[in-house]
Amino acid sequence: MKCATEHLTFNTKRRREMVRITEEVRRVVARSGIQEGMVLVSAMHITAAVWVNDDEPGLHDDVSHWLDALAPPGRYWTKESDADGAMQIRHHDYRHHRTGEDNADAHLKNLLIGHQVIVPVTKGNLDLGPWQQVFYMEFDGQRPKRLVIKAIGE
Amino acid sequence: MKCATEHLTFNTKRRREMVRITEEVRRVVARSGIQEGMVLVSAMHITAAVWVNDDEPGLHDDVSHWLDALAPPGRYWTKESDADGAMQIRHHDYRHHRTGEDNADAHLKNLLIGHQVIVPVTKGNLDLGPWQQVFYMEFDGQRPKRLVIKAIGE
Amino acid sequence: MKCATEHLTFNTKRRREMVRITEEVRRVVARSGIQEGMVLVSAMHITAAVWVNDDEPGLHDDVSHWLDALAPPGRYWTKESDADGAMQIRHHDYRHHRTGEDNADAHLKNLLIGHQVIVPVTKGNLDLGPWQQVFYMEFDGQRPKRLVIKAIGE
Repeated sequence: MKCATEHLTFNTKRRREMVRITEEVRRVVARSGIQEGMVLVSAMHITAAVWVNDDEPGLHDDVSHWLDALAPPGRYWTKESDADGAMQIRHHDYRHHRTGEDNADAHLKNLLIGHQVIVPVTKGNLDLGPWQQVFYMEFDGQRPKRLVIKAIGE
Repeated sequence: MKCATEHLTFNTKRRREMVRITEEVRRVVARSGIQEGMVLVSAMHITAAVWVNDDEPGLHDDVSHWLDALAPPGRYWTKESDADGAMQIRHHDYRHHRTGEDNADAHLKNLLIGHQVIVPVTKGNLDLGPWQQVFYMEFDGQRPKRLVIKAIGE
Repeated sequence: MKCATEHLTFNTKRRREMVRITEEVRRVVARSGIQEGMVLVSAMHITAAVWVNDDEPGLHDDVSHWLDALAPPGRYWTKESDADGAMQIRHHDYRHHRTGEDNADAHLKNLLIGHQVIVPVTKGNLDLGPWQQVFYMEFDGQRPKRLVIKAIGE
């Protein structure tokens, strides 16, 4: 069994950023000499994610905006019925922010997208579909954050 | 180390469909002769998903309906405060649709469910719980779409 | 190739509970003698999840409350337009509950978080970031439920 491990560090200029890393993953696999196996791509921080999808800027904007709707920065809301059964939207402060942090929404975005993917390796190359690209998604950047790429196989 | 790879092609009759594939995954593992290892089941398209859950039609209906609530077809909405602080629901067109596509919601559903699972292989069989079945979930079908099953182990 | 498999059983006192299992995962890897590889941590039930994130109680409360907002117990809701285009919130009974079950929301929470993670193993230890802990998240407990930990590598 062969194994190759590489750690990347990201320090994005903006707090939120989407970075294509398909080429880095391919390079780790090529360097490993692995012909058949799998490569794990996993964020080592809990306010970032790894996503496989289309490299289409409009879609990336949609995802970013939609993630804010589901996991809003600052405060979140729930829908609750009042005494007459009428709908009420209630706002809540994240309890995580009592620790002095302000990034609870980044944790929830990490949860929605997931912090890792596995790419199959077939005949020495990434076995991806025609539009599949691997992205590192940063939700709380502007500081060094790590990701691990680990390939195993033969 | 042993390795076995198989690509399946789905061409669903309806745009959205749920296809049980536990048996196909089991067959790939049996054919590989692997006794201990893992099998990756990964959609190669970005508008489909792979899900492990119960084969209960009522639950499948719930999931489909609920996914439409979180990632609506056509347009999506956000809750925003207006100048007096009153709640406003605002509708947005997906920017992805400016490319001529109409499937942005399928990308978001792929994101919510995830496009892959790993099934552990123990003593030559899938190490699944009593109600765990593997499903391919199509959100934008009626055309050929691929999935890769890759088992590694010994 | 080395391989080690262990099944854990949880029987939580409360219906919903978050259990840190990083130490159990580390123990399985240490026992296996694996220096380089991966360890899969996968719930065998469809109403529980496995999550890698921060061990911060405020964040855990946020996640629990927020999951209830997205995947509500009892009934769920959608936003629909009525004939004049005004927004209407409509409530729906989960169809899954017609089977006699009352845990449809637990299935949806499993879907949102995912039922498994892979932890990379480097130099004989879990290759986790500084705040990454592995949690078993129970959404429908008070009965025995299993999880499988499977390490492969060399």
